[in-house]
Amino acid sequence: MELWFTEKHTENVTFSIKVDRQLYCGRSDFQRIDIFESKEFGRFLTLDGYMMLTEKDEFIYHEMIVHVPMAVHPAVKRVLVIGGGDGGAVRELVRYPSIEQIDLVEIDRQVVDVCRKYLPQTASRLDDPRVTIYYEDGLKFVRTRENVYDLIIVDSTDPFGPGEGLFTKEFYGNCYKALTAEGLMVNQQESPFYPVDAIAMQRAHKRIVDSFPISRVYQAHIPTYPSGHWLFGFASKKYHPVTDFNDSKWETLGLKTKYYNTKIHIGAFALPNYVKNLLEEVEPD
Amino acid sequence: MELWFTEKHTENVTFSIKVDRQLYCGRSDFQRIDIFESKEFGRFLTLDGYMMLTEKDEFIYHEMIVHVPMAVHPAVKRVLVIGGGDGGAVRELVRYPSIEQIDLVEIDRQVVDVCRKYLPQTASRLDDPRVTIYYEDGLKFVRTRENVYDLIIVDSTDPFGPGEGLFTKEFYGNCYKALTAEGLMVNQQESPFYPVDAIAMQRAHKRIVDSFPISRVYQAHIPTYPSGHWLFGFASKKYHPVTDFNDSKWETLGLKTKYYNTKIHIGAFALPNYVKNLLEEVEPD
Repeated sequence: MELWFTEKHTENVTFSIKVDRQLYCGRSDFQRIDIFESKEFGRFLTLDGYMMLTEKDEFIYHEMIVHVPMAVHPAVKRVLVIGGGDGGAVRELVRYPSIEQIDLVEIDRQVVDVCRKYLPQTASRLDDPRVTIYYEDGLKFVRTRENVYDLIIVDSTDPFGPGEGLFTKEFYGNCYKALTAEGLMVNQQESPFYPVDAIAMQRAHKRIVDSFPISRVYQAHIPTYPSGHWLFGFASKKYHPVTDFNDSKWETLGLKTKYYNTKIHIGAFALPNYVKNLLEEVEPD
Repeated sequence: MELWFTEKHTENVTFSIKVDRQLYCGRSDFQRIDIFESKEFGRFLTLDGYMMLTEKDEFIYHEMIVHVPMAVHPAVKRVLVIGGGDGGAVRELVRYPSIEQIDLVEIDRQVVDVCRKYLPQTASRLDDPRVTIYYEDGLKFVRTRENVYDLIIVDSTDPFGPGEGLFTKEFYGNCYKALTAEGLMVNQQESPFYPVDAIAMQRAHKRIVDSFPISRVYQAHIPTYPSGHWLFGFASKKYHPVTDFNDSKWETLGLKTKYYNTKIHIGAFALPNYVKNLLEEVEPD
């Protein structure tokens, strides 16, 4: 017998992983949640059938969504993570002693419970005393906050289903207000390669550009996401992600990382021409 | 009816593309050759069932294997391409007026014939008067050349089957001899992500380090290759790929590219820590 998990990256492209067994299958109020065990990727989490993370390559996504902004902003004390119920972003954040407060807003409590049980590799630091988990809709949560956070990390699912609201103009505008005067926001921003993803990426970028004075896009190699070429948005009120980046300061922290380093930081903002062209095209709202 | 092409990226991972129809299927003295037509990627070429190129993303591979070395060496006149029967590397090379001679050594004449017929997008410039095609074994060809080429591009298949000899110490040593005193060599060097590919990549790197005074590795996002994270080797007698790189000089050439640019050039040499660690590990021969 062979058991395979298959994800459609587009209508015409599939990516399949041989599975040893399914460890969990459940349906929350928001989505279907599955955990699988595999030889190639260790355990992996899918939501509504879409790959969220694998034990083998989650370090790439989580390091890049956390260390890039942390290496730019000189004094992050309060952080808001929206989504990210797997705990991977929090695990990287708690490594910074300067951070005093981490608010994690995850709409789906069941995701957190399942990850605590089956994915201790990512959900390992959710009990850090600086972390407060709010089981709320991130879209509503940010409406109520003003001038609070130095950093907002939007660690969302794709721009359809429960994550859809986290790609809207209203949401980005509220993130802007929830940030301090020197605050910055990063978000996962899909892939530039397949047209179906690129359209969502362009739309998100356009809305962020409209909401923040500084807006850049950076990339990472994430093998289990469609095309393996994944983008993140970097939106900022004051600090530029490259010219205000202080590599030696980050290096003095002595954090051991498996993907991120200060050269990757600069390189990640060097986008291919075809991606730059996509970002320059205006996608009407 | 649905027709799908499936490639095993490892024993436990597959990547599949929906195919409209098969345009060509043949067996040469060296390998099986197939051409497919697909909605997502246009036409694509496979050798022995392994993806070589698609019309949709071949620009990434061919730009990165050609423009990176061409932007480092200040005066390339004579180029040797080993493999590359699809013509994609030659297509990028002939854009440089300074190049006087391009020798293409492809072991399999049938690959060239099939690409000329079915992949005019890549095989478009093989008739340039500066190009000479040798239907010979690249391993043997370089043995007979000394102090001839400014640049050698090893555009090979994977390190098994017909391409195996192009990953040996003897071959790299002969490339060194075939190069001029300021010459450099680039090669496609597999992916760092899946252990089965990473071992081949490490072995090739070790052998190149043993053969050349300067040896670096650079990367690109190539969605249709395993993991999407692809590496190239840069081996050189004199020029360093980053510190001897003159971005404004390349920009004055005015070449339009879809992936490569001078910032990508620098960023491509910024490798993730896990890749740097793999390259530093010594793999005994």
